[in-house]
Amino acid sequence: MHTPWDHRYAQRTQRMGSSAIRELLKFTEQPDMISFAGGMPAPEVFPVQEFKEACIRVLTDYGPTALQYGATEGYKPLLEMIARHTHRYGINVSIENIMITSGSQQALDLLGKIFINRGDRILVESPTYLGAMQAWNAYGAEYVAVPSDENGMVTEELEEALRTGPKFIYVLPNFQNPTGVTLSMKRRHQLVELADRYGVPIIEDDPYGQLRFEGEHLPSVVVLDDQFRGNHNVYHGNVIYLSTFSKILAPGIRLAWVIAPAEVIRKMVQAKQGIDLHTATFNQIVAHEVGKSGFLDEHVKLIRETYRTRRDVMLEVMEETMPPGVNWTHPEGGLFLWATMPPQCDAAQILKLAIEQKVAFVPGAPFFPCGGGANTMRLNFSNATPEKIQEGMVRLAHLLQRAVCP
Amino acid sequence: MHTPWDHRYAQRTQRMGSSAIRELLKFTEQPDMISFAGGMPAPEVFPVQEFKEACIRVLTDYGPTALQYGATEGYKPLLEMIARHTHRYGINVSIENIMITSGSQQALDLLGKIFINRGDRILVESPTYLGAMQAWNAYGAEYVAVPSDENGMVTEELEEALRTGPKFIYVLPNFQNPTGVTLSMKRRHQLVELADRYGVPIIEDDPYGQLRFEGEHLPSVVVLDDQFRGNHNVYHGNVIYLSTFSKILAPGIRLAWVIAPAEVIRKMVQAKQGIDLHTATFNQIVAHEVGKSGFLDEHVKLIRETYRTRRDVMLEVMEETMPPGVNWTHPEGGLFLWATMPPQCDAAQILKLAIEQKVAFVPGAPFFPCGGGANTMRLNFSNATPEKIQEGMVRLAHLLQRAVCP
Repeated sequence: MHTPWDHRYAQRTQRMGSSAIRELLKFTEQPDMISFAGGMPAPEVFPVQEFKEACIRVLTDYGPTALQYGATEGYKPLLEMIARHTHRYGINVSIENIMITSGSQQALDLLGKIFINRGDRILVESPTYLGAMQAWNAYGAEYVAVPSDENGMVTEELEEALRTGPKFIYVLPNFQNPTGVTLSMKRRHQLVELADRYGVPIIEDDPYGQLRFEGEHLPSVVVLDDQFRGNHNVYHGNVIYLSTFSKILAPGIRLAWVIAPAEVIRKMVQAKQGIDLHTATFNQIVAHEVGKSGFLDEHVKLIRETYRTRRDVMLEVMEETMPPGVNWTHPEGGLFLWATMPPQCDAAQILKLAIEQKVAFVPGAPFFPCGGGANTMRLNFSNATPEKIQEGMVRLAHLLQRAVCP
Repeated sequence: MHTPWDHRYAQRTQRMGSSAIRELLKFTEQPDMISFAGGMPAPEVFPVQEFKEACIRVLTDYGPTALQYGATEGYKPLLEMIARHTHRYGINVSIENIMITSGSQQALDLLGKIFINRGDRILVESPTYLGAMQAWNAYGAEYVAVPSDENGMVTEELEEALRTGPKFIYVLPNFQNPTGVTLSMKRRHQLVELADRYGVPIIEDDPYGQLRFEGEHLPSVVVLDDQFRGNHNVYHGNVIYLSTFSKILAPGIRLAWVIAPAEVIRKMVQAKQGIDLHTATFNQIVAHEVGKSGFLDEHVKLIRETYRTRRDVMLEVMEETMPPGVNWTHPEGGLFLWATMPPQCDAAQILKLAIEQKVAFVPGAPFFPCGGGANTMRLNFSNATPEKIQEGMVRLAHLLQRAVCP
């Protein structure tokens, strides 16, 4: 049907493809599909009972206030709770440095809105989080890619990329989406030093940092940056830090937060007024109610244990069944691992066969900002049960055996 | 504190002022302030008990599904409920014509994102909704203003504005924000005919349409447009229609919807993937649970009755106390009325005095897309109790008496 809207789309609309991930999620709705495609948490670990009790308490105690319009920056007790949490991890911020967003995806959109002019270069790991590129493509971003290996962004190649004058560096140091790898301590230091030398600030996206189930916690880039500048435990503002309740509480309430210089927060708040006024009041008060007495600290232990088991099952089946020439990462936390097939394999082609066999994954190519990666795939291990992971990975291994040695 | 972000803001950030309305809301937090400034519903009419029962049922019956990621376009049973509601008002749409947004503000942002190139002209009423301009300024919109009077947009002046080649027309036909006036039947027809003659599509923003407490319901522009094209009860897509749960259920859950051609919805869904993935699953399922059995149809009667009483009190005090030379609208529904003082009065100056007297309103000037209106103000009558309205309006009238006859 033709309408007068057809020839009225803005130029930027042409750069908006439908997300490969989101389109694939449609397949996962088939009840017999075993999906490693999405990035969904295990539903088994959602604290449904605690959430229900919090809803009742909030509506009983706060009444209409919980359903009314609220402040754009967020619900103050929730901001204070996040400030205390951030302080525990070594950064002293006040609530002027924090805002609530409707999921981390909105934080990425807001950062694009206030910082990115058409043609600006953003320095990213390759591969990097697809959602960040989706948000920033709409503002005309270009990308400078630094490759990553099993220790994260190859900082040995960072300096050359920094000389191209990027607007900022975007990095996911912990159990990165899509690869699952963690930026090593040595490279974190290198990243901070080189960013300082070239005067380029950093956006640190850390949705999974608390979901480490193996190895030792590494300090955030924002913490290391502040140590590098002296005055330990002071927030200097060179690093904007993003995290979320999606992976430690539940994604369906769309709650995340940003730590940034007060002036950046003010600008983001102004931008947020124009894009959704504020994040749902009710969700913020309920999240505060669930989290205020330290419940989430206990709860993440259950999530870690659950995801460790699932990762172990996935790795075990891969060890046993994957054909030679297929390699994969060994994530110490998070939700994803990353497999690389021999160069002649095409993950998108294999996906079509996989869906016939009722198993799904995400082809890796869309995560590469400058092309390549056709022989890679992202595998999510958080959502399916261990039994399903076992069964699905066997199916997938059979397909790969045929693809690798046809 | 200087940070490396300071000189990195995008050009569009310079066009983002902080909203006068949002800044003013800070004053309303003072407990002894009587505020006519915001656009908040009466907290007394929020269905807290029904909402609580729905939360319990949803978490009991749906469990983790209610807390998981969801589809970008929205929760299907909620889309179906909106399709049925839309059909009752005379338009036959399928769920491909509908999407859920995180409040109508997000719908405005999405429409700006997919349609507005820098320098595009948008045809608006003058004054018009400030939030639409906030959303669209970020995309570089310019405005062509058509004045409005007590019957809404002066369509006699529309043709000249249409000749400037606007991308679309933006209109709030019912109890407009900020003026409270309603577009007359004759002018609705003129709007539809002229828009068709010049091939310019329309965005109809209708947050208050169900809150009519006086006079007869007038058909929506989207309905009249479809009748104009023949094939009654078919959605032709020339008019994109926006409405919201904020005024009939509660704003703190951030839920609204868009009716548009399927292709426009697809583009908006792609854009929404990049800006917040999807609107909170839990809120959508709860809103469906509250609304599915027709509760909201009954509930709006209470809202209408409450707002009618408050409007009547405000009008009555104004009749009794306002000095000569001050005029105001007589809204048949909605949340706002609009006062115009003699030309020498400056509403922004009066506001400063008003705040000292613990009464607040919104100066009208920011609602004018092309300047003017310094002697106007918007008064909200939905939020304060009748007693507070009485008291606050007497305070305000005293100030105006001094301002008008100093």
